[in-house]
Amino acid sequence: MKVAKKLFTGLVGAALLSITASSPANADEVPHLTKEEMKKASQIYFDRCAGCHGMLRKGATGPALTPEALKERGLNIPAIEAFIYNGTPGGMPDWGKQGVLTKEEINLMARFLLNEPPPPPLLSWKQINDSWEVFVPVEKRPTKPANPNWKNFFGVILRDVGKVAIIDGTTKELLNIVNTGFAVHILRTSSTGRYMYSIGRDGKATVIDLWMEKPDKVAEVKVCYDARSIDTSKYHGYEDKYAVVGCYWPPSFVIIDGKTLKPITRHSTSDYYYDTKDYVREARVASIVSSHYDPLWVLNIKEAGQVWLVDYSKVDKGTVKVHMIDAERYLHDGGWDLSKRYFLVAANMRNKIVVIDTKDKELEAIVEVGTKPHPGRGANIDHPKFGPIWCTGHIGENRIACIGTDPEKHPDNAWKVVKWIEMPGVGGGNLFIKTHPNSKWLLADRPLNPDKELQRSIFVFDKNSFELVKTLKVPKDFPGRAVHEEYDENGSEFWISVWGRKDQPTAILIYDDETLKLKHIIKGDWVRTPTGKFNVTNTMKDIY
Amino acid sequence: MKVAKKLFTGLVGAALLSITASSPANADEVPHLTKEEMKKASQIYFDRCAGCHGMLRKGATGPALTPEALKERGLNIPAIEAFIYNGTPGGMPDWGKQGVLTKEEINLMARFLLNEPPPPPLLSWKQINDSWEVFVPVEKRPTKPANPNWKNFFGVILRDVGKVAIIDGTTKELLNIVNTGFAVHILRTSSTGRYMYSIGRDGKATVIDLWMEKPDKVAEVKVCYDARSIDTSKYHGYEDKYAVVGCYWPPSFVIIDGKTLKPITRHSTSDYYYDTKDYVREARVASIVSSHYDPLWVLNIKEAGQVWLVDYSKVDKGTVKVHMIDAERYLHDGGWDLSKRYFLVAANMRNKIVVIDTKDKELEAIVEVGTKPHPGRGANIDHPKFGPIWCTGHIGENRIACIGTDPEKHPDNAWKVVKWIEMPGVGGGNLFIKTHPNSKWLLADRPLNPDKELQRSIFVFDKNSFELVKTLKVPKDFPGRAVHEEYDENGSEFWISVWGRKDQPTAILIYDDETLKLKHIIKGDWVRTPTGKFNVTNTMKDIY
Repeated sequence: MKVAKKLFTGLVGAALLSITASSPANADEVPHLTKEEMKKASQIYFDRCAGCHGMLRKGATGPALTPEALKERGLNIPAIEAFIYNGTPGGMPDWGKQGVLTKEEINLMARFLLNEPPPPPLLSWKQINDSWEVFVPVEKRPTKPANPNWKNFFGVILRDVGKVAIIDGTTKELLNIVNTGFAVHILRTSSTGRYMYSIGRDGKATVIDLWMEKPDKVAEVKVCYDARSIDTSKYHGYEDKYAVVGCYWPPSFVIIDGKTLKPITRHSTSDYYYDTKDYVREARVASIVSSHYDPLWVLNIKEAGQVWLVDYSKVDKGTVKVHMIDAERYLHDGGWDLSKRYFLVAANMRNKIVVIDTKDKELEAIVEVGTKPHPGRGANIDHPKFGPIWCTGHIGENRIACIGTDPEKHPDNAWKVVKWIEMPGVGGGNLFIKTHPNSKWLLADRPLNPDKELQRSIFVFDKNSFELVKTLKVPKDFPGRAVHEEYDENGSEFWISVWGRKDQPTAILIYDDETLKLKHIIKGDWVRTPTGKFNVTNTMKDIY
Repeated sequence: MKVAKKLFTGLVGAALLSITASSPANADEVPHLTKEEMKKASQIYFDRCAGCHGMLRKGATGPALTPEALKERGLNIPAIEAFIYNGTPGGMPDWGKQGVLTKEEINLMARFLLNEPPPPPLLSWKQINDSWEVFVPVEKRPTKPANPNWKNFFGVILRDVGKVAIIDGTTKELLNIVNTGFAVHILRTSSTGRYMYSIGRDGKATVIDLWMEKPDKVAEVKVCYDARSIDTSKYHGYEDKYAVVGCYWPPSFVIIDGKTLKPITRHSTSDYYYDTKDYVREARVASIVSSHYDPLWVLNIKEAGQVWLVDYSKVDKGTVKVHMIDAERYLHDGGWDLSKRYFLVAANMRNKIVVIDTKDKELEAIVEVGTKPHPGRGANIDHPKFGPIWCTGHIGENRIACIGTDPEKHPDNAWKVVKWIEMPGVGGGNLFIKTHPNSKWLLADRPLNPDKELQRSIFVFDKNSFELVKTLKVPKDFPGRAVHEEYDENGSEFWISVWGRKDQPTAILIYDDETLKLKHIIKGDWVRTPTGKFNVTNTMKDIY
């Protein structure tokens, strides 16, 4: 039976195909896919499913989808089709209802899942190097910024069209639209702010020089098949020197040159689960942050439940130092506390926030929060009563949890939820919360809430009293969900994306922070599926 | 065709067996093995071949033995049989000639190699914990040493019988014979010297308490399927606290409690080759040494060509810090320089010695030496002319290379071969050289030399003039090869093993260091295949 499954993966010679094809005993059990179907299904699986279920289908944020696991749950083709079409309240998207996948494609995927997963290919260092391209050599780049507003530029991800828009935050003028990797997941800047980096779901890293007359990409390299994170060397003396990409597949981190993206080295993150100590080949790198006080990156090894502090100070000598810290499983996204000593990260399937002390380089605390925390980078508030706190929203419930982060001056509040903020309406669906030191507000979106109204709302809370001050609604002209808040460099205004479908232009809404009035709308045919927005100053300084 | 190969690995259901069995097209290409044959061949492969060729047969010290690789070299069954029977001058043993494998077994192995290697199983943490046994709890162990001579005890590996003999070096009395893992590869002691650890080829670690009336094993655990190295936490404050096992398969290091061997944590060593940056699943841990000046172990990741400095100071907090240092491929054995700041290790297939600076935690130098260096731990000499030097013999040639190791006071000699010592006769075959601060000599064996006389000789050089002073010969009464030299705690005598066949008792020869006369012979029916001998004081202090 196992052999029969393998047969359809396209990895075996044709010689035996005829033998098993004539074996009705196997045909009953494992649905047949043609080579073309297998190729198409593999691509759809990679694009839509692998993120949560894993390339090896062993499960992570989503359950395991191996043929064995599906059979254990008694799922046949119609049952699997129903899941794919309708989604689940647990977070599985309604691919059919949304119109992303056709009925034929859903049937194909159901049959595909009952076959053994094809072994994902490795990515050779030669392939990586072959993909590397420098469009503007370092010596031909500007020696000073062409635009005085450059530290208030915004990079805006146009997710489903694989582009990044560079917008002047001061004039609101679109400066350029840069072709990047597929479904860019995040943008980061170098510590000087000059270079902006994007990482595509397809593992393609792109660097944009913001000092150019027309900011544009100056180099590109594909270092993974699947990736979610990138960050840069932010420690003093290493400005613009290195970037690091966190790969989902192959499970690894890749260190590249900050200015040219030339691949330098990589290390595997396949390791043992921190708790069961059993082997997990698919131990993926989720979020990365960069320390301002040490030459190190914080890498979250999702499945293994380990946080790796990667010291880059001796990369030029062929040495990488890694502090492997046992933490909690299914690490996802997180950010710095106000002091930037502590890093807080969601163990999202475990309803916990892990706190890493990057000074002492150890686990500081694990804090129980609500269902499926999704902090993004979180939001830091210097609160008059509680002292410094860091907040996270949740995908799975309508509360925001705020955690005390100052064990020295506020030891009683440290690493406890000191405040639960309740959002109106039923259910969670929050993806991002945000504030700014100069703003009075804490902002929260609800794009994953099934309710159409909540999806299109931004909730504004007073960051001291935690009272709901206002609910901002996306104007009717723009179809889509409200997602991701970002402030300008002064905290005087904030930007919201209207996240629609690829075939419909939407908008970026800009609100005055003082009055909470919609003061400007960025629109145009090019505004397609905008998601994350990254202000240069806030990104270089990790202000959130 | 690939499917057909898989069929015989016993990993697939029986359903399809009949189908391929009736397929003559495949029978031509891939020799058929029964389930029993497959099992037997897998065991022989593991016992005799995997060490050099790898469990995945991708090659390391020996060439790749995948069916593809064999076919590329045009090797059919008779040709493969000839290799296995006769061996090669490059180091492949003559398994047939030696009488280790029968003609039937050699034919079986040739057919086995033309099948795809069965995927080696993972070893679960549960299996490891299930194998863990404490024979004498810590609280029931002696509070003071029962024998005043204990720091001059010797542990002697009785290799092929899977035992370790504990001998009182002062009285030469056999104290106990302890059952250990299969084909023990090395013995180490804790930094107090009280505990002696063995590691079997089968990954079984055993700890012997030397303070007992009759020294015996007090705990045991099997942490790998295949292993070569173990060492202990030697840094001040961590005495007797931890041990670490370096696994060949699964490729990993496992940290265990020093007194009870309770498994604590493990990490994978599968990573990317330091040079090509391509993935190597089978990146095995070769030798390990323990620093006296830092809470760290030096692990040699053979295939990847990386040296990992593993810091154990925060293991109790769930954190392991690893300095991953790019070095050279196929790292094997090595030892400390006289200052114990530098670690020197053979990259044996590259004819190089890699020098790691464990204080600055980086690669210090790579020194070109002769063909297939095999230092064991090497030999340190404080030379009147050259200053501190460290020497290694070679399997592949008859010279010993001595390298200057003091960049501060003897910078002109540092990390250069300052002396080549030529051994008499043709060819190499040296496995171990040894000296002691109180001895005038440098000793060298030749057990892998094809010449029967050279195999049974120990060459004694003056450690200052490097002149050959004497050649010691194994007395005719004892069949076997002379192997491995070890001094007593004062350097007043040295011990040599006579390495024979399992079915023949041999001897341990003890020579007076002053006169070079054979002063004592340890013999008896129990003296079977003695190899490495480890004096407690020399092992705890890393004197060589």
